[in-house]
Amino acid sequence: MTLKNKIPVGILGATGSVGQKFAELLAHHPWFEVKELAASERSAGKLYKHAANWILNSEMPKELAEVTVKNCEPNLNCKIVFSGLDSSIAGEVELAFAKAGYVVVSNSKNHRMDTDVPLLVPEINSDHLKLIEKQNFNGGCIVTNPNCSTIGLAIALKPLHDIFGLEAVNVVTMQALSGAGYPGVASLDTIDNVIPFIGGEENKVETEPLKILGTLKNNYIQYIDLKISAQCNRVSVVDGHLECIQVNLKTKADEKEIIEAWRNFLGEPQKMNLPTAPLRPIYYFDEEKYPQPRIHRSLDKGMAVSIGRLRKDNLFDYKFVILSHNTVRGAAGGALLCAELMKGKGYFDQFLKEKSKEAVNHGIN
Amino acid sequence: MTLKNKIPVGILGATGSVGQKFAELLAHHPWFEVKELAASERSAGKLYKHAANWILNSEMPKELAEVTVKNCEPNLNCKIVFSGLDSSIAGEVELAFAKAGYVVVSNSKNHRMDTDVPLLVPEINSDHLKLIEKQNFNGGCIVTNPNCSTIGLAIALKPLHDIFGLEAVNVVTMQALSGAGYPGVASLDTIDNVIPFIGGEENKVETEPLKILGTLKNNYIQYIDLKISAQCNRVSVVDGHLECIQVNLKTKADEKEIIEAWRNFLGEPQKMNLPTAPLRPIYYFDEEKYPQPRIHRSLDKGMAVSIGRLRKDNLFDYKFVILSHNTVRGAAGGALLCAELMKGKGYFDQFLKEKSKEAVNHGIN
Amino acid sequence: MTLKNKIPVGILGATGSVGQKFAELLAHHPWFEVKELAASERSAGKLYKHAANWILNSEMPKELAEVTVKNCEPNLNCKIVFSGLDSSIAGEVELAFAKAGYVVVSNSKNHRMDTDVPLLVPEINSDHLKLIEKQNFNGGCIVTNPNCSTIGLAIALKPLHDIFGLEAVNVVTMQALSGAGYPGVASLDTIDNVIPFIGGEENKVETEPLKILGTLKNNYIQYIDLKISAQCNRVSVVDGHLECIQVNLKTKADEKEIIEAWRNFLGEPQKMNLPTAPLRPIYYFDEEKYPQPRIHRSLDKGMAVSIGRLRKDNLFDYKFVILSHNTVRGAAGGALLCAELMKGKGYFDQFLKEKSKEAVNHGIN
Amino acid sequence: MTLKNKIPVGILGATGSVGQKFAELLAHHPWFEVKELAASERSAGKLYKHAANWILNSEMPKELAEVTVKNCEPNLNCKIVFSGLDSSIAGEVELAFAKAGYVVVSNSKNHRMDTDVPLLVPEINSDHLKLIEKQNFNGGCIVTNPNCSTIGLAIALKPLHDIFGLEAVNVVTMQALSGAGYPGVASLDTIDNVIPFIGGEENKVETEPLKILGTLKNNYIQYIDLKISAQCNRVSVVDGHLECIQVNLKTKADEKEIIEAWRNFLGEPQKMNLPTAPLRPIYYFDEEKYPQPRIHRSLDKGMAVSIGRLRKDNLFDYKFVILSHNTVRGAAGGALLCAELMKGKGYFDQFLKEKSKEAVNHGIN
Repeated sequence: MTLKNKIPVGILGATGSVGQKFAELLAHHPWFEVKELAASERSAGKLYKHAANWILNSEMPKELAEVTVKNCEPNLNCKIVFSGLDSSIAGEVELAFAKAGYVVVSNSKNHRMDTDVPLLVPEINSDHLKLIEKQNFNGGCIVTNPNCSTIGLAIALKPLHDIFGLEAVNVVTMQALSGAGYPGVASLDTIDNVIPFIGGEENKVETEPLKILGTLKNNYIQYIDLKISAQCNRVSVVDGHLECIQVNLKTKADEKEIIEAWRNFLGEPQKMNLPTAPLRPIYYFDEEKYPQPRIHRSLDKGMAVSIGRLRKDNLFDYKFVILSHNTVRGAAGGALLCAELMKGKGYFDQFLKEKSKEAVNHGIN
Repeated sequence: MTLKNKIPVGILGATGSVGQKFAELLAHHPWFEVKELAASERSAGKLYKHAANWILNSEMPKELAEVTVKNCEPNLNCKIVFSGLDSSIAGEVELAFAKAGYVVVSNSKNHRMDTDVPLLVPEINSDHLKLIEKQNFNGGCIVTNPNCSTIGLAIALKPLHDIFGLEAVNVVTMQALSGAGYPGVASLDTIDNVIPFIGGEENKVETEPLKILGTLKNNYIQYIDLKISAQCNRVSVVDGHLECIQVNLKTKADEKEIIEAWRNFLGEPQKMNLPTAPLRPIYYFDEEKYPQPRIHRSLDKGMAVSIGRLRKDNLFDYKFVILSHNTVRGAAGGALLCAELMKGKGYFDQFLKEKSKEAVNHGIN
Repeated sequence: MTLKNKIPVGILGATGSVGQKFAELLAHHPWFEVKELAASERSAGKLYKHAANWILNSEMPKELAEVTVKNCEPNLNCKIVFSGLDSSIAGEVELAFAKAGYVVVSNSKNHRMDTDVPLLVPEINSDHLKLIEKQNFNGGCIVTNPNCSTIGLAIALKPLHDIFGLEAVNVVTMQALSGAGYPGVASLDTIDNVIPFIGGEENKVETEPLKILGTLKNNYIQYIDLKISAQCNRVSVVDGHLECIQVNLKTKADEKEIIEAWRNFLGEPQKMNLPTAPLRPIYYFDEEKYPQPRIHRSLDKGMAVSIGRLRKDNLFDYKFVILSHNTVRGAAGGALLCAELMKGKGYFDQFLKEKSKEAVNHGIN
Repeated sequence: MTLKNKIPVGILGATGSVGQKFAELLAHHPWFEVKELAASERSAGKLYKHAANWILNSEMPKELAEVTVKNCEPNLNCKIVFSGLDSSIAGEVELAFAKAGYVVVSNSKNHRMDTDVPLLVPEINSDHLKLIEKQNFNGGCIVTNPNCSTIGLAIALKPLHDIFGLEAVNVVTMQALSGAGYPGVASLDTIDNVIPFIGGEENKVETEPLKILGTLKNNYIQYIDLKISAQCNRVSVVDGHLECIQVNLKTKADEKEIIEAWRNFLGEPQKMNLPTAPLRPIYYFDEEKYPQPRIHRSLDKGMAVSIGRLRKDNLFDYKFVILSHNTVRGAAGGALLCAELMKGKGYFDQFLKEKSKEAVNHGIN
């Protein structure tokens, strides 16, 4: 599975919290190798170990500590960049990179809803990748990853949508602190407290799934016809977004059928055996106290969605609880899986060729 | 407002967390004076300071520390008892007290839904008190206080129900640790975590408001016709239940009208100026990040309901957030207000007479 | 006790966390009335309710919400100012105010160790106030309040110093989040964590007590001869600094004598019955699990020091645990007590005269 | 490194928190294989998945979920047992197993200070293992693991003791919640709080290192001559005990020499390359804000001790901060390392022989 000559990649916004997570997940990756770190002018020119205030529990990857951070300008020695840029600048910077021929896999919100940009969850809509053909960027392109609260929701909804049809979805989230980046939320605002507001979040959860679950027709995404309501809260949890979901289904289904639909669900990443893919995208728990953030967020490399408490509801057909790791599945890990999907589907063959005849000749070993 | 000869009262389950809160709130009460403390056999015979593992932030009231705890048997020297008994025994013990002629004001769930027992929120349904005439207990009676998550919800719904009519109510709660008593939830289950399950809670929230908002007809409570769905979660907060609410109204209303309905709402306790009544039952906050548990739970003596974030919803007419103090408004304080309502309406005149001619002659000074 | 014509005062740094605490504690103060709020240029010109991101649990005092915040320039309509200024500017601004004839009661560190500035804990060294005669400021002066970790320590040490003599003091603190101001510590740094470092803090705890416990001789403070070692940690607590203390005493003392020394300790504020003075500066708890931050920080208006667990030590004579509220006793409340001491000792008579003949004629009513 | 025929082992107290940690760490162990789970009568006869309320973040090892839990009686099909028994019964049960010929590797306190029982930290005192020859148990024996706060401390002290000599050690701990087992500390006692008391803990920290660092002479441990003082606090942290340490050394040393002593320190487990041994027992951090529990507790499999903030002290020669994972290095992981040491030194050869000729013939592959 490990490539002899790994594909060089870069990280935009490498010093931020998402950028760090990219760095962590890409260490020892079988296909990709981080060669370039780029960040704001304040960091450019410094060694990564000096520029980044490392906030993850793991140690900073040794091979990156001594790398000099560059500016976020499209002159990096790689053709694929992962973007953890702040949305205040991501829009322009990512566009500049795409125009210069880079593949930009972005976790930022700026281009998610662009008509020619795939909003990708590889288990759900790998066919949406074709949208990038609409992007006239001389070989470059932008691919995006949904909002951290949306991804888990969309994965949980996908089998229901496919098998029973969805009519309405109601969501109340309890989101982790890491979703706000670093320094993010002040400790005085979260200890012994809940904040019932996250700026801009509810709108994302209410709209992004419509595109993700949408259908590719004539190189255009037709949104599904579905009403979603979202209420978003910040709770005192390090990682792991918990969501209380209610759904109306188009066709009747009993609990057993729904749970089976979740447990049987597999997507392209599982079939293609992508390195970061979870063995199963969804785990259903029978214990009524599960899932819980601290217990289940890291399940299956932090890439799985945990579901529990499916039961009939007074107002909707069913209600249940889902959990997913917001910085892994919901951010850097999800974006990485998008890149792996592209690699698996041959989108990066050009870069492999450029990089090394040997790798192409011998393939994956 | 202070009675010269206060009415002696007792606390059943005095060593538990609700019992302690009763003891705290009744210290320096202008009308009531705690004369009797009763608890389980394990505590009986001990001084209160030795029997109770005091868990509140305040200090144990000095005048109670040296009181000897008695058994929960109906031979206490008082005619009114507040019950914070565990539901495993509250049913029988409260009945025994009522049959022996005691007024039992209970925070336990056991008798809440009995057809002849008022489920009282004084701001909402003070007329339900008449139900106790159906209780044939030789002068004794049982009056109950709703579940801690129900009370705030019911108060927030009352003005909407009265003015616009309610068709559907959806609730997702984020409940405080103190709601589980002491020792209650293990610290390892709540640090960096949320528990998406509270045994029996959802059913209470879905049914109790139907009775509370119901109509007294022919000495019988006709439940309102309303569908409520509840999902209950335990979060790492000391006190204060936060709830995300969605409602469908029977008649059209704009945001301004709804907020006005809340801000103008006053109940019997406000009109009668009861000692524990909040100045206003409901406070609406315009800041979109409010209400928050640590900031607003103690508002107006912990007896007010804080509301915020009213906004249009994709699936229901409106959504908003409410907060109320679960051990004050939602438990001991709410029950105390029930007793004050009874006193204010003359139900305790008999005990005043028995207790002291002087007090009756001179009235409240 | 309430003055008919209260003394007008101002708050410098009114929008910060210490400034807000000043505003909260001065609301309804019997002697002082906040007339002026001053802060940085960013806030100047705005109403206080718009300029300050109110972070306290109480509501912003209504009478201040509509006050327009001014610049920190010495042209305020009052003669006494409380300073909660950031240390980056406090040094110069406070000096400017003093030179312009203002009495500056400061919680900032800048002038604490100046030879002509009292570092005041009213229970300990009220005589140090005389130092201000050395300040040649045309009637103005600077009086300072110690560091939040120092105050509780100094109060606990004072009776030991007076009765038994101190030879060595070892301190390890576990300090609350509010000590770092707002936004202060990031939530991701404190949840499920302890930070074993607080910049500059250890030095303050090791030196300030030497001056506070020092002796006024010839209008000069002679520091006591004492070695103090401090290690400072930040823990996940809202308010209340807990400290593990070890001491060597000059003369033998048994536990009973030490506890008695603490329990009997009274200072000038108690004798003068100052409004913000605690009834007793020190409370000793016999329960071995006490004191605890959430339980005891607000004891006696948050102005008392709680002590517990006195026991013999293997390396020092004794060890024990102390707790004090860092934003009340350790900051705004402590500074307010300094001002009350000055008022009680007649230092503000001039301002009273200026303000109102009536008040002087009738005195305190 | 993986044995073809692993050595069967059992876990006593398998359903408790330490027992679960043993089960987690022994899953996929290259040498040992859990064959027997034993617990109290309440659990005996049930499947492990039903008997144990699994509290770890990992999932229960699948191969154990279906194992039937047995009583803690010495008729288990294995010769080596790891004991996570509660101290109320560990004394007798462990003795019974030893007398019946079992090797008992215990994390319980009961036999730690017995003169013929090694109190083992493999990096420090592997020679103490010889003590078990004094135990006349027909081939059985008891080996113990120190208290969770002691281990990190002892490892940090060992190089200082060897190179510079120790004269005095002062310790203040901030200990994690998991140290109290499950349910352990109530959430209401730890949220927004610190508990400055842990029953029995201070005594263990003050005495156990004297034995661990002691010298084996004539098959007897001569304690080192050292005064230790300990103060123990419980903080709101899941895992990881942080300790503020002060030391007096017998010979002069500068910071550089001390840090070098720590960084160069290696013990038997490193030299023998034991499976659970950390690469290095001690990591020293130059950043003054490190070590921190959430960041560093899992360093090097949770088996390393993290040290930081070495600096000169006013009362002692030096002060510094240490951190170690209390349930891994400080409990189950530490005990497992003891068993690996015994295996490495040939103590289990007899069991290998009994178990499998093949394994002996082919050795470790």
